[in-house]
Amino acid sequence: MAEANSERVKVKRGAKRAQYDRETVHQILDATFLCHIGFVLNGEARIIPTAYVRIGDAIYVHGNRKNGAMNAILDGQTVCTEVTIIDGLVLSRSAFAHSVNYRSVVFYGGAEIVEGEEKVYALDALIEHYVPGRQADLRAHQSEELDATLVVKLTIDEASAKVRTGPPVDKEEDYQGSTWAGVIPTPTVYGTPVPCKRLKSKALPEYLRAFSD
Amino acid sequence: MAEANSERVKVKRGAKRAQYDRETVHQILDATFLCHIGFVLNGEARIIPTAYVRIGDAIYVHGNRKNGAMNAILDGQTVCTEVTIIDGLVLSRSAFAHSVNYRSVVFYGGAEIVEGEEKVYALDALIEHYVPGRQADLRAHQSEELDATLVVKLTIDEASAKVRTGPPVDKEEDYQGSTWAGVIPTPTVYGTPVPCKRLKSKALPEYLRAFSD
Repeated sequence: MAEANSERVKVKRGAKRAQYDRETVHQILDATFLCHIGFVLNGEARIIPTAYVRIGDAIYVHGNRKNGAMNAILDGQTVCTEVTIIDGLVLSRSAFAHSVNYRSVVFYGGAEIVEGEEKVYALDALIEHYVPGRQADLRAHQSEELDATLVVKLTIDEASAKVRTGPPVDKEEDYQGSTWAGVIPTPTVYGTPVPCKRLKSKALPEYLRAFSD
Repeated sequence: MAEANSERVKVKRGAKRAQYDRETVHQILDATFLCHIGFVLNGEARIIPTAYVRIGDAIYVHGNRKNGAMNAILDGQTVCTEVTIIDGLVLSRSAFAHSVNYRSVVFYGGAEIVEGEEKVYALDALIEHYVPGRQADLRAHQSEELDATLVVKLTIDEASAKVRTGPPVDKEEDYQGSTWAGVIPTPTVYGTPVPCKRLKSKALPEYLRAFSD
């Protein structure tokens, strides 16, 4: 297992759940699309939740060019980005031992605007990350759309992952009781796609059939 | 609709999606249990994801008494707490118009330790918020468990909610094309409870049957 590459990301509490290797960090980042970006504005903490895609050792986010938060993170500060996926509720025999099965990543790095080819590549990758196969079903970006959009790259300079899996872990004496214990899974599930009423053909394209049960 | 009660929480981009009334904020906070707390440490942004329960105009979170982040937010700063629930992927006819159906809250307030009856009440409420009916199935807290646990109250001093619902909204000319458009719902779903192997009776208690399909 890799070691923490900075004091900032070193996990102190629950250290046995901590992982610092790049592959684990990337796998977690690739498994969802919602991140929470923490930054400092006028000395105070702020958070923006936003969609992202990971490409290499960075994630890319986007927003309106006039978006206050997106512009605020471009002042040279190190931003803190966090992603958490909840995999299950862990019902232990005591309130104290209750937990959550989860996969989370926290990383620190700088934020910078990207333009030109990298910008379009990141936007296309964002769509593909959101719904694989979607990009080929879309018309090209219009120049005014690109102009109105800010794409920001957040580099993964220092990262740590924390993962909990498995059953409850209780105090030995608590196993004697009759309290139900186990895990309630919380899988990510997609419902049947709801077509726009103005679609001419309601047929679901091949790339969306995985979403339809 | 209520007005923003501070400049800090006033939503500038996507203002038509903003809501400031207490009922909407509370409904969103009550609909999930994972929040993201943003705070400042040594001048830099930090985020901790953690479980919470709302009681009145505050949420309560907990952690190990030695938890660095939980202690760091107790230095008198105004912390930023954010909750986001993703309800669907909005597939529009252009990449630009893609969106997400979501409910989110950002609020600002102070953080303080609670002890005694309020602490136990908050811990019990947290369990009940996590799994309704669970508290009655658990033994009492042990004093060493309470001593090892920090319960922190975050007051909802200034809050805003943002909500997007409904179908894609496209440029008028884009409705003529053949691109599939609609919404892929992302409901919160629970899987069948997985009992601990050391349970003497595998029977699911009444209060957990809602989780079993």
